[in-house]
Amino acid sequence: MTEKSMLVVSAHSADFVWRAGGAIALHKKNGYRVKVVCLSFGERGESAKLWRKGPDMTIEKVKAARREEALAAAEILGAECEFFDLGDYPLRVSDEALLRLVDVYRDVQPAFVLSHSQKDPYNFDHPLAMHVAQEARIIAQAEGHNPGQKIVGAPPVYAFEPHQTEQCEWIPNTFLDITEVWDVKRRAIECMAGQEHLWEYYTRVAQQRGVQAKRNIGIAAKRDIQYAEGYMRLTPAVVGDLS
Amino acid sequence: MTEKSMLVVSAHSADFVWRAGGAIALHKKNGYRVKVVCLSFGERGESAKLWRKGPDMTIEKVKAARREEALAAAEILGAECEFFDLGDYPLRVSDEALLRLVDVYRDVQPAFVLSHSQKDPYNFDHPLAMHVAQEARIIAQAEGHNPGQKIVGAPPVYAFEPHQTEQCEWIPNTFLDITEVWDVKRRAIECMAGQEHLWEYYTRVAQQRGVQAKRNIGIAAKRDIQYAEGYMRLTPAVVGDLS
Amino acid sequence: MTEKSMLVVSAHSADFVWRAGGAIALHKKNGYRVKVVCLSFGERGESAKLWRKGPDMTIEKVKAARREEALAAAEILGAECEFFDLGDYPLRVSDEALLRLVDVYRDVQPAFVLSHSQKDPYNFDHPLAMHVAQEARIIAQAEGHNPGQKIVGAPPVYAFEPHQTEQCEWIPNTFLDITEVWDVKRRAIECMAGQEHLWEYYTRVAQQRGVQAKRNIGIAAKRDIQYAEGYMRLTPAVVGDLS
Amino acid sequence: MTEKSMLVVSAHSADFVWRAGGAIALHKKNGYRVKVVCLSFGERGESAKLWRKGPDMTIEKVKAARREEALAAAEILGAECEFFDLGDYPLRVSDEALLRLVDVYRDVQPAFVLSHSQKDPYNFDHPLAMHVAQEARIIAQAEGHNPGQKIVGAPPVYAFEPHQTEQCEWIPNTFLDITEVWDVKRRAIECMAGQEHLWEYYTRVAQQRGVQAKRNIGIAAKRDIQYAEGYMRLTPAVVGDLS
Amino acid sequence: MTEKSMLVVSAHSADFVWRAGGAIALHKKNGYRVKVVCLSFGERGESAKLWRKGPDMTIEKVKAARREEALAAAEILGAECEFFDLGDYPLRVSDEALLRLVDVYRDVQPAFVLSHSQKDPYNFDHPLAMHVAQEARIIAQAEGHNPGQKIVGAPPVYAFEPHQTEQCEWIPNTFLDITEVWDVKRRAIECMAGQEHLWEYYTRVAQQRGVQAKRNIGIAAKRDIQYAEGYMRLTPAVVGDLS
Amino acid sequence: MTEKSMLVVSAHSADFVWRAGGAIALHKKNGYRVKVVCLSFGERGESAKLWRKGPDMTIEKVKAARREEALAAAEILGAECEFFDLGDYPLRVSDEALLRLVDVYRDVQPAFVLSHSQKDPYNFDHPLAMHVAQEARIIAQAEGHNPGQKIVGAPPVYAFEPHQTEQCEWIPNTFLDITEVWDVKRRAIECMAGQEHLWEYYTRVAQQRGVQAKRNIGIAAKRDIQYAEGYMRLTPAVVGDLS
Repeated sequence: MTEKSMLVVSAHSADFVWRAGGAIALHKKNGYRVKVVCLSFGERGESAKLWRKGPDMTIEKVKAARREEALAAAEILGAECEFFDLGDYPLRVSDEALLRLVDVYRDVQPAFVLSHSQKDPYNFDHPLAMHVAQEARIIAQAEGHNPGQKIVGAPPVYAFEPHQTEQCEWIPNTFLDITEVWDVKRRAIECMAGQEHLWEYYTRVAQQRGVQAKRNIGIAAKRDIQYAEGYMRLTPAVVGDLS
Repeated sequence: MTEKSMLVVSAHSADFVWRAGGAIALHKKNGYRVKVVCLSFGERGESAKLWRKGPDMTIEKVKAARREEALAAAEILGAECEFFDLGDYPLRVSDEALLRLVDVYRDVQPAFVLSHSQKDPYNFDHPLAMHVAQEARIIAQAEGHNPGQKIVGAPPVYAFEPHQTEQCEWIPNTFLDITEVWDVKRRAIECMAGQEHLWEYYTRVAQQRGVQAKRNIGIAAKRDIQYAEGYMRLTPAVVGDLS
Repeated sequence: MTEKSMLVVSAHSADFVWRAGGAIALHKKNGYRVKVVCLSFGERGESAKLWRKGPDMTIEKVKAARREEALAAAEILGAECEFFDLGDYPLRVSDEALLRLVDVYRDVQPAFVLSHSQKDPYNFDHPLAMHVAQEARIIAQAEGHNPGQKIVGAPPVYAFEPHQTEQCEWIPNTFLDITEVWDVKRRAIECMAGQEHLWEYYTRVAQQRGVQAKRNIGIAAKRDIQYAEGYMRLTPAVVGDLS
Repeated sequence: MTEKSMLVVSAHSADFVWRAGGAIALHKKNGYRVKVVCLSFGERGESAKLWRKGPDMTIEKVKAARREEALAAAEILGAECEFFDLGDYPLRVSDEALLRLVDVYRDVQPAFVLSHSQKDPYNFDHPLAMHVAQEARIIAQAEGHNPGQKIVGAPPVYAFEPHQTEQCEWIPNTFLDITEVWDVKRRAIECMAGQEHLWEYYTRVAQQRGVQAKRNIGIAAKRDIQYAEGYMRLTPAVVGDLS
Repeated sequence: MTEKSMLVVSAHSADFVWRAGGAIALHKKNGYRVKVVCLSFGERGESAKLWRKGPDMTIEKVKAARREEALAAAEILGAECEFFDLGDYPLRVSDEALLRLVDVYRDVQPAFVLSHSQKDPYNFDHPLAMHVAQEARIIAQAEGHNPGQKIVGAPPVYAFEPHQTEQCEWIPNTFLDITEVWDVKRRAIECMAGQEHLWEYYTRVAQQRGVQAKRNIGIAAKRDIQYAEGYMRLTPAVVGDLS
Repeated sequence: MTEKSMLVVSAHSADFVWRAGGAIALHKKNGYRVKVVCLSFGERGESAKLWRKGPDMTIEKVKAARREEALAAAEILGAECEFFDLGDYPLRVSDEALLRLVDVYRDVQPAFVLSHSQKDPYNFDHPLAMHVAQEARIIAQAEGHNPGQKIVGAPPVYAFEPHQTEQCEWIPNTFLDITEVWDVKRRAIECMAGQEHLWEYYTRVAQQRGVQAKRNIGIAAKRDIQYAEGYMRLTPAVVGDLS
């Protein structure tokens, strides 16, 4: 049987850790191949601590540091990382980059796709990443694009949790129980030396989502959920049972 | 192991057939106990053909005919039917009736619940039925309601398809493949002698949803879907795998 | 040929003047029968000036004064007025009152219906009036309600303009050119002696909507529009030409 | 008197047939000039059957086949077709192409405009086509664009029906009765040899919309509606009568 | 100068502590009179721990325990508490109770009002409490209600934070810095012996809102915010400066 | 202490006068530095009167006339004006222009920012201006953009009033009392010789918003408001008092 796989499209090189680290570790554990595409390193907009190190800091040094952190985290989580290095603040995605992402889809044949929320007034790179993730998925489904290649099916698309959920009109209609891989996610988080102030923040996010997930299966349920990740599924589910 | 069960809350006595007949037949086939609560018979607002039979028609005769049709359909589908006989156009639900529905929840302990869309500008009985279905579910979860009884968990709530979906702001985020039980649903539909004009209409609904469900698993998928029902899931899912 | 007719459901006795006076005068001029139902007199919540006249003022005196104003305005506009006297702040509509409104529908057989916006955070009587106008319409369509009576068709429902449109999520998708009857509406407005501070306000509303209506037919169009009323049509149109 | 005209902006060369074929045939019959702009041929994303013919297939052959089908359908419907050939999956519209569409507006002076829904998670070319249709309309209204040319007025803009309406947040506020031209639309549909699997699908769409249109004029109304098209009107109507 | 005051309308007797405890403590510290109305004790739906104490538990004992906890918390926070004892799961508010709340408004003359979110699929008592809070406010503004009493102005209305914010369509457009009174709120929280599992949950809520509030003033700002409460302001602000 | 400042991003050279003239005059009076960026002159789409002067009119003449009017208005209001001259109908903003706007942010360090509504079906230049205003603000916050420069904080963003508010989904959650500077705004408005038809329109807008603002502080409040501007605040407020 073919190995199942999943795809994460991350605007900046750390996003996949905070927001989808649990999903990556859990599916990896369950036998999935995990591919992460980082559209940029977040070198300008999400590396404040590095820039404050002094006037000797350069964009190349920041990118190198960010790449190193991302690779360390990806290794812990069990993901392959590909860096598109498209720049950030603002991120811009050319049609060439879009088609490169289509190639990734065709290669990975993901069972599902994770990316950012469709709206984020605090960060315009994030919705663009999701837009590109969706547009590439549609092109990857087209028989007339690189005819002869295997097209992709209709992998469900999920938006992972943004920083200020309500302002982003992001609603978690799916909770993923990550209790059994929480320690892995936490270790990956700790690779993000430049954003230490966020470690506890995202630990609390996982705890709150854990409590909510528990409530959504009923407090009397036997399953204990300590940590969870919330996702907003954008595409309909096709099922054979409603429970 | 305990038998699984499902609950359908239907504003009028025929609604469960058109809108959830496939789900009922399919889950019955798969071993579920199926309970249907009909809040009214639809005797005033959805029995035009009966009323046109002439001046001898009475409300009691209409209700008896509607009950008979509903029971015949329920038998084909494999559901137990309970009639609350609360009147229609307008449906009104007293707190006493609400608590009777809570008793049904406690008794049935459903794995999931189906009812109407939360908005329906063409029919105010429908949203009320859903409101009551949700409120009874919440009360059935309360430890202080009839202490000592077994409380219910957090069964997912789904809205089945209304007549004019877009006007009802109803979005099908879940498709149920009912191909293998379509003939059962069609036979149940044909019990609705008073609304024969709708037989073909709802057959076409099932075909359209079948095409859409197929598209949402990808046209290259092996599974063939001829008939489907659309549902709008209102409560978050808690899962262990995102594919 | 039968006379065409229209129905206005007004929460308080002055609402129909400010908000639909132009529509009433225009359709009256064009041969319509116009029926207005005032659910209350607005005696508690919209009669501040009367109450300030001193401690001798009583609820009955306020209602009498409001009735007189409403009748004077209705006469100028050409409408029949029926007062349900259900009380205001809060308005409450019993099922008995609802069925009385159903009788009005059956009697009037309106070509279209006007009432309040579906949301109004400043005034909870307004959305209730619209809710009742819609529910009565649905019941009036039911063959099983007073069998033998002529049922109503599917008259379009419009929400007229609330005081603070944006807060009410009211969007004018229909502009009615009332230029030719503006003087009639203004005279009717001036019957509202107790709310003189609103005369200029609603004159400006009509002017602004006139400018906007003009813009929506194109500034190069020959038709001149000085005054208009905005409406939010809630029900779909069925047409034979899209221009 | 000048001939009236209408404009359709179609993302791919077949869209106008499935989605607006009835409107085209009906208005043509009633004396309108009908202009269709096809932004692309749908050669990559909507020509799966052609691509499956084998490795000899080329993009130019697909485009030629799609053009032929579209022209055949257009002839049956009575429309003039102009192909912009901008490519699909992804469609991209340069400012040059946008201004070419402005020229079409100025030339055609349409009484109304039809294009795609403003959102479509299954197809990003569709919303772009509507965006361009609206932007070109606005520029065509500007006196400073090619001064001296006759500017356009404010033609109403309608979104025709997408494949999965609810996911597209498309709400049909206007139904067009196409019963009398249904046979014409069906013949045009049958020109789409490459998408035969959709013939019955769109026939059922027309039947469902017919039933709904009938319901929206009231089941007691004399007019019989067998087939209809749904439209979402985006621009306000300016009227002289509300019935 | 008159003392300023604020009003909190709480569906159950503990809600005001978790959700508005910081606002109460802070405004009390700054000289406000704080009035809390508890519509019910939450005796059936939010007292699971008490009910599990055994078969000797009665509704009266639960109510007494809940009242005691609420009073202890209110004393720490500095609020006056009034219990309407209307029952919960389901909460029902008669017109008599509504008018009692109007009396509270007239007496307190609040500078602003806090209550629940307008939607909450997990708890139907919460939106009802907000509905009543708003309707009572409107009646309290009416000159014709108890003429001669001092009417209330237009106090802003805020919805405090519900348990699952996104599902409730609650968006925090206002953050209140409660750092300086956090210890007071925490002590009040600890009075809720029956819901100890929520202590840490709501501590984390305050920390997360603190981080977000800090971000919304800019990370470079000097003000340090450790704890905050989020509010959704429902009524427009009228200001003299936009910064 | 440093002078406070505000920034206005105007799509066309007259927008800032009609829509934010009161805010500019008021804050200027209160000691603010006011900077206005005009992305275009509105030379093609909003200068109809100039173009009608005859065939000798050129784009350069129109731009010169518009610049002169804008400068005259800005002088009356007390604002500095910078013209980006990017063209209109359609406005297009290159990344170079975006970064020029970032420079303005860094230089001005605004306490708040005003621009257009996020949606405007009548004018696609307007939402683009707001988008750019927001994206530039985000980049100006990034430490990695021109490291060493002083980054900006988190200035609140407001959308000023569009022409047809409801169609633009613009909701005024903030009213600014401009009574004391109304005469200044009116004089600035009168500089717009080419759009004299709008003078009275925007005077009425200010009067209507004045009435509404008054209602939102309570009709019994002492403060008299004759003229106001409505704003839609897009970013959360962080406050220390809720009244």
